[in-house]
Amino acid sequence: MGIKVLRMPYEWYFCAMVINAAQLCELLQGELVGNGEEKIYGPSQIDAGIPGTVTFLANLKYEEYAYTTGASVLIVSRDFQPRTPLKASMIRVDDVYGAMMTLLEKFGKNGTPEPGISKLAVIGDQFQSGMNVSIGPYTVIEKSVTLGNNSILFPQVFVGHDTSIGDDVIIYPGARIYPNSIIGNRCIIHSNAVIGCDGFGYKPDENGHYTKINHVGKVWLEDDVEIGANTVIDRGTLTVTKIGKGTKIDNLVQIAHNVIIGEDTVIAAQAGIAGSSSIGSQARIGGQVGIAGHIHLADRIEIQAQSGVHTGKYPEGSRIFGYPAIQYMDYLKSYAVFKQLPEYTKRIEELEKQIAELKKNLT
Amino acid sequence: MGIKVLRMPYEWYFCAMVINAAQLCELLQGELVGNGEEKIYGPSQIDAGIPGTVTFLANLKYEEYAYTTGASVLIVSRDFQPRTPLKASMIRVDDVYGAMMTLLEKFGKNGTPEPGISKLAVIGDQFQSGMNVSIGPYTVIEKSVTLGNNSILFPQVFVGHDTSIGDDVIIYPGARIYPNSIIGNRCIIHSNAVIGCDGFGYKPDENGHYTKINHVGKVWLEDDVEIGANTVIDRGTLTVTKIGKGTKIDNLVQIAHNVIIGEDTVIAAQAGIAGSSSIGSQARIGGQVGIAGHIHLADRIEIQAQSGVHTGKYPEGSRIFGYPAIQYMDYLKSYAVFKQLPEYTKRIEELEKQIAELKKNLT
Amino acid sequence: MGIKVLRMPYEWYFCAMVINAAQLCELLQGELVGNGEEKIYGPSQIDAGIPGTVTFLANLKYEEYAYTTGASVLIVSRDFQPRTPLKASMIRVDDVYGAMMTLLEKFGKNGTPEPGISKLAVIGDQFQSGMNVSIGPYTVIEKSVTLGNNSILFPQVFVGHDTSIGDDVIIYPGARIYPNSIIGNRCIIHSNAVIGCDGFGYKPDENGHYTKINHVGKVWLEDDVEIGANTVIDRGTLTVTKIGKGTKIDNLVQIAHNVIIGEDTVIAAQAGIAGSSSIGSQARIGGQVGIAGHIHLADRIEIQAQSGVHTGKYPEGSRIFGYPAIQYMDYLKSYAVFKQLPEYTKRIEELEKQIAELKKNLT
Repeated sequence: MGIKVLRMPYEWYFCAMVINAAQLCELLQGELVGNGEEKIYGPSQIDAGIPGTVTFLANLKYEEYAYTTGASVLIVSRDFQPRTPLKASMIRVDDVYGAMMTLLEKFGKNGTPEPGISKLAVIGDQFQSGMNVSIGPYTVIEKSVTLGNNSILFPQVFVGHDTSIGDDVIIYPGARIYPNSIIGNRCIIHSNAVIGCDGFGYKPDENGHYTKINHVGKVWLEDDVEIGANTVIDRGTLTVTKIGKGTKIDNLVQIAHNVIIGEDTVIAAQAGIAGSSSIGSQARIGGQVGIAGHIHLADRIEIQAQSGVHTGKYPEGSRIFGYPAIQYMDYLKSYAVFKQLPEYTKRIEELEKQIAELKKNLT
Repeated sequence: MGIKVLRMPYEWYFCAMVINAAQLCELLQGELVGNGEEKIYGPSQIDAGIPGTVTFLANLKYEEYAYTTGASVLIVSRDFQPRTPLKASMIRVDDVYGAMMTLLEKFGKNGTPEPGISKLAVIGDQFQSGMNVSIGPYTVIEKSVTLGNNSILFPQVFVGHDTSIGDDVIIYPGARIYPNSIIGNRCIIHSNAVIGCDGFGYKPDENGHYTKINHVGKVWLEDDVEIGANTVIDRGTLTVTKIGKGTKIDNLVQIAHNVIIGEDTVIAAQAGIAGSSSIGSQARIGGQVGIAGHIHLADRIEIQAQSGVHTGKYPEGSRIFGYPAIQYMDYLKSYAVFKQLPEYTKRIEELEKQIAELKKNLT
Repeated sequence: MGIKVLRMPYEWYFCAMVINAAQLCELLQGELVGNGEEKIYGPSQIDAGIPGTVTFLANLKYEEYAYTTGASVLIVSRDFQPRTPLKASMIRVDDVYGAMMTLLEKFGKNGTPEPGISKLAVIGDQFQSGMNVSIGPYTVIEKSVTLGNNSILFPQVFVGHDTSIGDDVIIYPGARIYPNSIIGNRCIIHSNAVIGCDGFGYKPDENGHYTKINHVGKVWLEDDVEIGANTVIDRGTLTVTKIGKGTKIDNLVQIAHNVIIGEDTVIAAQAGIAGSSSIGSQARIGGQVGIAGHIHLADRIEIQAQSGVHTGKYPEGSRIFGYPAIQYMDYLKSYAVFKQLPEYTKRIEELEKQIAELKKNLT
């Protein structure tokens, strides 16, 4: 089976279903222009479109590809008028992006495990399970854990004691949940993420040796939170590290102890937030951003990738950049001059020379 | 059990013990001002203090909260004199921070596994075990491994062959120890950390293809080292990558092959140290710092978060910042000007105009 | 066994074989100057050379150590003429670096598991296995997976359904391969790396809530790719995230959805590449570099550590640096001025004062 894939063009790997253009059109409630018999094996990107696939023109910036794509079917918006005839069949829809999501949902569902608790899972006392759960082999659940309805624990997951996991949660292989965590409904936790480990806190003595501060708080993920692979969220020192409803966190992100994040905020890969800081709702944090400890950011802050944020004093909705971060446009303007600084050196030297000459001439 | 937690205020989750204010006072050898009958269910932060909790005024910067906190008991230093009466009962102690640590220790102990070796662990030949060890299910130990007294290997850990682990070590679920590692006494290794994997070393040929250099060295963690979740420490090429006694490393840190780190150094999350560099003792490395390869830093260096360190030529105890890093205050002063650079452009242009005019007037 | 190691000097841990200087010389086809009976227990670095070890003078920059090293045998190039007599025996070879690699191969081979499929592995239906494979305990393989000849899955690995793994592949403990991945021949995947997880893509609605975009693509690692510990590679949205033949990726790297990387490129630790970008062949990406989404970099680009790359408009072979990245030397020149900016402030103020005086004197 699998080995055959290697001998096929890589784009042809969606064979879970075959559909023809007319059926596809009906599914999307669109309007077909072209051959309804054309068979579709999967989706593809417009610039790499392959015969037997369906692709999308969601952004007119890419219109040129509409005329050259090899895909068999192109989904466009109702009002799209091609400048020259297309090779592909066209399906006109109200919402191209929405149609794409419908199709991805249809074509691409990864197999989820069957409900059932593997005999090879280890489950502690006082386990409270909802209906229809799936627990994979080699998963370990310590005592006094609650798991909601329809939730899936893939193989090789660890869930510490006194943890509460809501309904419709998916936890991928190798994720580790330390004790006392709270995982809301519909949360998704990717492989090898670590939730609830000790905060990085020590008390130095007079000789510079460090004594570990016992962290007794916990992590609370509200509903609809997604946590990327290999991301780490430390538990609170005394109370809680909390990720607000609907917030999405990418891979390899560090969230330190006591951090509070609002709702519907997105945090890109490899960003790090130091201890006891807070971020508002609907913020957008770029990749590799660093946020210092004990600062409090307003809602809807947008932080450009790699910025270093050392203060919370930015108005709501600010877009910031730099190290330390300043207003986005200010950083760009300053950096534009930075690039010319060697030139400025010459200009200042020239000014100094001319002034010296002027003064000499005047005396 | 667990599910009920979701219906309680999140701060009320420390029900492992209940203690009243008078008992608490005795425990801390303090002096009580207020109601000794007040029941305490756990600690809380002073700014989020909740009835039924004990909180701390360790830093007078937060004194204002002492008057407004909802916590039932407030721990203060012997010499603290409130400006107005407190709502909370007060316990006066010699060392507020020390009292807090005592309490965290008392309230917050996560359950540690019972001693014993799970039948579901796989243990190789020539295993030498100390007394009182705990080895969880689905942990794999290759051949010729030594494990000291009272050490805990949580479930799902991997320990490569010929590894030596000291006494009182804790290794959390999913940590991976490659072969030949040495783990000192009282080390703590958090979930999904990887110790001893291959260094990133290749020999390019004339066509630009890379041949892997076999790394035959090892990782040596001295006593009292803590390694954060998802941190990676590569083994030495020929000899050793060594982390000195008492050094603490946060989450998601990269330590490359042959790196030598001194004692009682702290390294914050997502910092990275390239191959064959060394760091002294009692250094403080900020989050997301990058340190280039083959450089040697003196003791007690303090590196601000996100800095890039390209040379070891800083005096002992320096505080450095920037990219590449310079002295901390120098960076801040230069950056203060950087922010005004567009303004400087105008000033230089104005100077040039005025000089030109002066010269014109003089001829 | 193991515990004894702690009582020996740390460099003495290569006791897998003992060889004398004459045998070593023969192995390397070199020319011996000194005592052929000298026993060698392992390799060491020249600056930390220990009796009973062999070390290397591969770079004349380190020549001084040749005279002081405590190692018993020193490997040098055919034409090396010591200025003063060496304490160590000398073996002259044509290619010192090549000799070192031969020795590392000989001394340092980590034990690889015996071929065989553990009874404690869980293997799904329609598994196609090559000859001579090794599958460790607590590894889980979902349905319809193909595994090539001589490939090794260490313990605690997860392989999702419909994944194809080539010949001579090594996957270390705790690596997670999401479904539908393609892993080429001779690939190496280190512990806790995650291959093929969901891309970070959401569609915001009018209220700022995010709906997850189903990612139906896959990850394709071509032949001879190495992936470091705790690195994450997201799968494509529609098609593929692809790592070209011979490319080597270090630890804790983030490769987002739809990224395409050429052949024989090296990417150092903690670098991150955002969605839909591409990198050419024989590029060298430094540690902690960030590359923005949707940009396309030419072949043989060299990016200095921590740089931020926001555009693809650099000529082939460029060496770039900065945030945002500019030509390497340009950044260094500008940064040299940056460090003097407070001085420049004074110079500009002085110029302004002098001009004002001149103007005053002239009126």
